[in-house]
Parts: sequence; structure tokens; C-alpha cells
Amino acid sequence: MNYERLTDKFTVIGGPCSAESKAQVLRVAEGVKQSGGDVFRSGVWKPRTSADSWQGAGKEALPWLKEAKRRFGIALAIEVMSSQQLESALEYGIDLVWVGARSGTHTPLLDVVGQLTQNGQTIVMLKRGMGAKLRDWVGAVSYIHKYHSRIVLCERGITGPGTETRNVLDLQTAWLAKQETKLPVIIDPSHAAGRRDLILPMSRAIKAAGFDGLLIEVHPNPDRALTDAKQQLTLKQFGFLTENLKAIPSSNESFGNEIK
Amino acid sequence: MNYERLTDKFTVIGGPCSAESKAQVLRVAEGVKQSGGDVFRSGVWKPRTSADSWQGAGKEALPWLKEAKRRFGIALAIEVMSSQQLESALEYGIDLVWVGARSGTHTPLLDVVGQLTQNGQTIVMLKRGMGAKLRDWVGAVSYIHKYHSRIVLCERGITGPGTETRNVLDLQTAWLAKQETKLPVIIDPSHAAGRRDLILPMSRAIKAAGFDGLLIEVHPNPDRALTDAKQQLTLKQFGFLTENLKAIPSSNESFGNEIK
Amino acid sequence: MNYERLTDKFTVIGGPCSAESKAQVLRVAEGVKQSGGDVFRSGVWKPRTSADSWQGAGKEALPWLKEAKRRFGIALAIEVMSSQQLESALEYGIDLVWVGARSGTHTPLLDVVGQLTQNGQTIVMLKRGMGAKLRDWVGAVSYIHKYHSRIVLCERGITGPGTETRNVLDLQTAWLAKQETKLPVIIDPSHAAGRRDLILPMSRAIKAAGFDGLLIEVHPNPDRALTDAKQQLTLKQFGFLTENLKAIPSSNESFGNEIK
Amino acid sequence: MNYERLTDKFTVIGGPCSAESKAQVLRVAEGVKQSGGDVFRSGVWKPRTSADSWQGAGKEALPWLKEAKRRFGIALAIEVMSSQQLESALEYGIDLVWVGARSGTHTPLLDVVGQLTQNGQTIVMLKRGMGAKLRDWVGAVSYIHKYHSRIVLCERGITGPGTETRNVLDLQTAWLAKQETKLPVIIDPSHAAGRRDLILPMSRAIKAAGFDGLLIEVHPNPDRALTDAKQQLTLKQFGFLTENLKAIPSSNESFGNEIK
Repeated sequence: MNYERLTDKFTVIGGPCSAESKAQVLRVAEGVKQSGGDVFRSGVWKPRTSADSWQGAGKEALPWLKEAKRRFGIALAIEVMSSQQLESALEYGIDLVWVGARSGTHTPLLDVVGQLTQNGQTIVMLKRGMGAKLRDWVGAVSYIHKYHSRIVLCERGITGPGTETRNVLDLQTAWLAKQETKLPVIIDPSHAAGRRDLILPMSRAIKAAGFDGLLIEVHPNPDRALTDAKQQLTLKQFGFLTENLKAIPSSNESFGNEIK
Repeated sequence: MNYERLTDKFTVIGGPCSAESKAQVLRVAEGVKQSGGDVFRSGVWKPRTSADSWQGAGKEALPWLKEAKRRFGIALAIEVMSSQQLESALEYGIDLVWVGARSGTHTPLLDVVGQLTQNGQTIVMLKRGMGAKLRDWVGAVSYIHKYHSRIVLCERGITGPGTETRNVLDLQTAWLAKQETKLPVIIDPSHAAGRRDLILPMSRAIKAAGFDGLLIEVHPNPDRALTDAKQQLTLKQFGFLTENLKAIPSSNESFGNEIK
Repeated sequence: MNYERLTDKFTVIGGPCSAESKAQVLRVAEGVKQSGGDVFRSGVWKPRTSADSWQGAGKEALPWLKEAKRRFGIALAIEVMSSQQLESALEYGIDLVWVGARSGTHTPLLDVVGQLTQNGQTIVMLKRGMGAKLRDWVGAVSYIHKYHSRIVLCERGITGPGTETRNVLDLQTAWLAKQETKLPVIIDPSHAAGRRDLILPMSRAIKAAGFDGLLIEVHPNPDRALTDAKQQLTLKQFGFLTENLKAIPSSNESFGNEIK
Repeated sequence: MNYERLTDKFTVIGGPCSAESKAQVLRVAEGVKQSGGDVFRSGVWKPRTSADSWQGAGKEALPWLKEAKRRFGIALAIEVMSSQQLESALEYGIDLVWVGARSGTHTPLLDVVGQLTQNGQTIVMLKRGMGAKLRDWVGAVSYIHKYHSRIVLCERGITGPGTETRNVLDLQTAWLAKQETKLPVIIDPSHAAGRRDLILPMSRAIKAAGFDGLLIEVHPNPDRALTDAKQQLTLKQFGFLTENLKAIPSSNESFGNEIK
């Protein structure tokens, strides 16, 4: 997977919240590829609110992902929370690793992720930390940027007064982050909304605004998903989404100093 | 101005934060009309943070607006904060009156606005109150809906942790308000952003998401505006915006129960 | 009731969310007085989220309050939302009228309340508007201050990410408002919490911090209250609270420029 | 330092944001001890917004702290962000280690901190993560609680609409965390406020509410501090604070099911 394509083309990353079985991984990866998705995402080690919750399939899932890449020629993206997890990810040919919202202001992880990915082609995606202001998010970039600049940002909503949504999707700050860092910015409406009925209109908004891509949760049977059941799309809905987005032109114009 | 067009067509409402002079009103109204704007907005009585600030031109500005409508055939929209202001607005043929964010949870005003507009064709736009949750906003609708249903909603951002923007633009809750009330929802990116560089990308997002229109502040010379200098567009920028939006298809699809 | 006492002594205002009957008003007023409460509060016209909800007993309740004042010698406090309500309140000898959070940024009401109370001794309490920042709150004061300065501020929590509480109690901003305006500041933990288990610890905090008083909801039988059932105290709990607070010293010291 | 004392007595933890030199550490530790402070805190490895900012004195500062403990008999508290830092801390006899707000939802760190402190007497303090809701905070506890229960919670404010303060101090949620976990809860007004004029009134509130202690930043010369210059108290102010708090009775009563 080439970092430059992220700035050239609107990138759709799709896949389940969690890898649950080899069959599930292969089925979703095939569906995402067929629908024109560019990258397959999957939770492997899951950052859960409580230690008592299921913590993801872990390292066992990595061969499933590698098999999906081999079969369907789709790039792979996973979250990592430690140097050990990152080393395993690199070993299995993961193309993009991300630092999640719950780790987005934990600077030692940012440092180690930058350092371990400085050689090679692995892309690092940095989600905006929970409660992070623009300066916290941009500051977090600087810890990785010491090592390389294959960095993508990702907005997934902020803790706020939204009561019917999981988080408040803050596209304005995401746009300012894009302006300030000149990095591609991908938006994750699945975690911002926490409910699937908002995914289509928000995805249309995200593409038209000029952001660089989408991170979408997809599951063969969302109601039976082990995590995030309410926000994952079915494969059919994901196909409808990617088809629907074709008619939306992308752009990253704003009123800079040109038009007065 | 016909209420039904608000649901049929993406409506662009443009004009200065405040009516400052007859010449300013006529110049902007002509520019808005020429750029394809559907409605001319203008602050007449201004709800200011401090009693010491300029409170708007007041009733004196209404003939300026009437003249703009006569000359350019453009519909008129203003904010009202009392029954007296509303009666003046109706006398001068204002087509759409809005209840602003600072009054959006003040129920006696909602009641009187509903009552005084129940006859005739005047449209009522209800901005989401500062700090209002979805249920507060939808509840506010019920005070007007007792009298009639020519109601439009308007999101202008919520008080939140945004530090570089005036408010946090909450498109998710605006979409849920649209779903729940079945009313048209217009978005005001000028007040959400408080800065003009975000207006173009957010307006593109708003149209593509499937919202029903935009409320945009435009001024012949924003830097000299008496209010909201940083967020008003020039006439040239407004023209660029309306032209740019032509390529964005509108839609109000979401994943309801149809696609599974 | 004397405005000066508000600055001299920690003032406890107690009473039901809504006046429901003469018997309920008299019972609570007597209990509040016996427990050392200084002022009896009661909702008369209720600002409800939805037009379909009960809107309070209205003007009918004013004689009940007057009777309570006559019998128990306790001052009276109610919320007003219009000039008509305020005129009725003044007619029935209400000692303190307040502008509620839902009206706290609606400037025409602020103006009329200031104007109609400029003669006489009536005290005006200004709740922080929903979503109001410090400057919005302080700005709102200026609309009343044009007429007189018998003004008290009241913090009742802001819309925020609190999910288990109704609002986020923002004592820091309330303290800054006190410093900036030099006005007494009273805190309403009942609306901030929305649940009665937080009232005692927060009231202790409020008195010790140096705020000027408390606004507490009390009901003979909270579980059967027509409004705000979860946050009203029983008369016994209110008595426990006022007794408990006696041991907390008040103070309004901060590190100004004196101690370095 | 004994964990049980944290539940028996109101604990004041004071010290500089960052250890800057041996002289500074010894001077503040002596002052904190003389003013009746119970524990000396100091930043050693600093979690900074930007990689370009000074990252703290690091391991070099640990002998300075050990010397302060030896001379003045005061317990020691520092923040740790990795297993290596924690191992160094344990080696130098640190009594309390804390996980900071920027790491408070990073579960692998929580796990490793719990594991490495399970033997011995070291106390773990868990700050509420930036943007963490009550369930996120309580969930974070569960990762440490797998290993032991010498855990203290610490509230330091949430990202919110406060513009004049660094964060919004959320005492209500802190109290609910105390009720739900039955753990001691300490409050850090220095980081919540970000300005020293709020420290005294908020500290009085915190003690009276019934919380278990305070975390206060103190510096010999705050204006010249390398970090957090605006919020650190002088030694004289810290002395005034601890003296002032003596008159405030502590309590952790609330209206549980006892008083009806």
C-alpha cells in the first residue's frame, strides 16, 4: 500500500470492529474488496472499557488477516497498543497501524510507533485522543514525525453533550488539523455515531467536504457482533454506501488567501 | 416564498450579520440574488452578549429590506425576539422569521411566534438553543407546532470544547432532528465556525449529507463589519461558494429499515 | 427581604420544583422555615421541554405563596418568563424573581425584568443560560444592571459530557463570575445533579468554597412530584442538610494579589 | 506510606509540576512538609503536548526525590508512563505512582502498573482520562484491580466549554466514582483550574464535600517554572492553604438509603 495514494484518492477502509474468526475475516474482506473498499480494517487487540470484557482474538487473528490479503489483494489496517503488538503486526505485513483514541495522548506509545515504523512502508494513523483539543492532536503528531512522515490523522468524535450519539463528530476541528499539518485526514463515522443510521449521510458529508477517506465498521451479521453491534454496517449496506459515494465529488478547497 | 420549496430544493440563505445601511443591504441583496441565493437574511434587532454593544439598526432597517425585495425579487429572513418585533416583521412582508440560539429554549417566545404566524404564509425557523440537547430542540418545536407546521430547523453549533472554532458543528444531532421531526433542517456554518476558512468545506458537507439548506453570512467588506467580522464571506466568496456547490448532489437517504 | 443579607450570610432557598396545591406549598414552606431556610422557592409557571407537558399551576398558585409568607414569615422566590408573569409576581409580593437557564440569554426578557424591578426592593436572580460561557453570563448581567444592581447570579450546571448527572456543575466558572461581577453567587445543585444523592456533598462544597447560598428543591413526597421527582429532597433530608451545613465555615478568600 | 491513611485522613499532596534541580526539589519538599503536607509530588518524566517541549529531568531526578524523603521524612509521588519508568520509581522507593490523564484510558499501561506493583506497598493513583466518562474511569480501575486494590482515584477536570479555565472540574462525577468504587478519591484543582486564583476556594470545596485529599502544584518561583507557570502556588500560598483548610470539617456523608 502506497502512502501517496492516500492523498490522491478518497480511501475507504472497511471491516469488522473485531476479528472474530477466520471465516468472518475472509467473508468481510472479500465483501469490502468487491464493494471497492481500499483497505481492510479489523480489531485484533481490543481496547475495552473494562478488564472483564473480551479483549479481542489477539495474535491468533493475524494469520487470518494475512490470508485475506493474499486471497483478495486488499491492504490491511489494525490498531496497536504496544511495541509487542506492533512488532507482530509488522511481521504479518500489516500496511497501516493506528493508535486509537484511548491511546492518542499516551506519548510513549506514539514515540515507539514512530521509531519501529521508521524503516519500511508502514503507514501510521493517529486517531484524535478522547478529549484532545486541536493542539493536543497536532502535538501528538510531533512524536511520530520525529521519525517519519507517513502519517494519517483520524477523527472519531469527541466526548460531548450528544446523548443520542456515542460522540460528537467534530468535522471543523478535523479540517483545521488537515490545514495545520498538511496530512491526510480520514474520518470514522462509525465510532462518532455509534449507530448505523447516521453512517450514510455523514459519509457523504465527509467525502464532499474534502477529507481523504473513511473508516467504516462492517460485519456479516452486526446484531451478533461481539463488539459495537449497533454501529456496524451489513455487507449490503457497505456496498450501497460505496456505490452511493461515487456521485459525490471530492475537493479540498477552502477560502484561503486566494479568493477575496 | 413557498414553504414547500424548502423541502424540494436546497435553499441558500445569504446576507449580512447586521443591516448597517440601506446601501449595504441593497448591495448584498443584489449580490446574493445574482449568485443564485434564494433568500436574503439580515440581522435587524441583534441579540448581543452585552447591553453595551450596538443592538442593531432595529425597525429603521425594515424599509431597506422591503426595498431589496421589491428591486431584486428575493425573499426576506430576519430574527425576531419579541411579539413587537414580529409584528413589525409581518407588516414589512418578511417571508421567514427565526428564533435565534439565545432564545431557542425561551418557551413564551416560541408560543407567541407560533400564534402570530398561524395565519398567512410566514415560515418560522427555529435555531437549536445554546446548550440544547436533541430533546430540548424537538420539544421547542412543539410550542410552535400547536399553531401551524411551516417550521424549519437550524443547527448553528453547540457550546463545546472547540477552542479554535466558535462552536462545535453537530451535524449528527441535526440529522437526528430531521429524522425525528420530518421537518427541513438548514445549517448555519457561519456561526458554527466563527471563521470564514471553514465555510466552503462545511457547506459542501452539509449539502451532500442531505440537509435542506444553508444560512451564510455575507458582507461587502467583512473586515469593516459592525458584527461578526471574522466569519462573513465577501460577495465574491459567496459567489464562488454557490457555484462550487452546484456539483454536489443532494440526497436525504439513510439506512432506514429498507437496506439490510 | 433585604438584598444586603445575601452578601452577609449564607442563604438557603428551599422549596418544591412546582407549586402543586395550597396544602403542598404550606407544608413545604413551614418545613423550610423550621429547618432554618431563608427563602421559599416554588415553580409557578414552569418552562417545560415540551408544550405537551404540564406547564405549572400558574397564577393560581400566587395566593398560596402569599399565604405561606403571611403564616411563616418566609421570603418568596419564583421564576418569571414574561412581563405579565413578573407583574403578577410583584402584585403578590414576591421578594426575589429569577430568570431561568432556558431564558438566561434571551436579552429582551432581561431588559424587561430589569426595568420592571427598578423601583422597590425586588431582587433579581440570573441563572447562567444553558450553554452560556462566562462572557455570555456576565454580558447578561449588563442588561439588568442598566436599571439597578439588586442582582444575584445562580449556577445550575452546564450541558456537558456528564451522563450520570443532569448537567456538569461548573463551580470554577461560577467563582470567576463572582470575582468579575462582585455580585453574590448562589448555586443550584438540584438541577446540576438531577439526583438527590449528590445534594449533600455538593452543598457542603458550595458553602465551604465561599459561595453565597443554595437553591434546593424540597418536596413532601418526591416520588410523587409532578416534576423533577428524582432530585427533590424530602423535608427530613432538607432538615438534615441545613443542620449538617452549620459546621461548614463560609469564606470568600482566594489568592488575590495579597498573598505571594 | 500506608494506604489505609488515605481513607482515614484528608491527604495533601504538594510539589512542583516538574523536578527542575536538586535544590528546587529539596526546597519545595521541605516547605510542603513544614506546611503539613503529607506527600511530596513531582513530575519526573513529563507527558508534554509536543515532542519539541522539554520532557522533564527524567531518571536523573529520582535521587533528588530520594534525598528529600531521607531528609524530611515525606512520602513520594510521581507519574509513570511505562514499565521502565515504573521500575525505576520502585527502585528509588517512590510510595505512590500515578497514571496521568493522558494515559488514563491506555489499558496496557494500566495492566502493567497493576502487575508490577502487586507486591510491596506502592499505591497506584489513577487520574480520570481526558474525555473519560464515568464508565471509562471505573472501567480503567478494573485493569489494576485484577492485581491489587491499593488504588486511589484522581479527578483533574474534563475537556469542556470552559474558556477561562484549563478544564471543567467535575466534582459530581468524582463523587459518583467514589460511591461506585468505594476507593479514596483525590482532587487536583491545579490542573482543573490552570490558574492559581481558583485553588483556595476549590480546595475548601473539595475537603468539605468529603473527598479524600488534594494534589496541589507548588513551586518556589512559579513565574519562572519550566512548566505550568500559571497554576503553581508559591510556598507561602501553599502554607496559607493548608492552614486555611484546618477549619473545614471533612465528611463523606450523602443521602443514601438511610435518610428518607
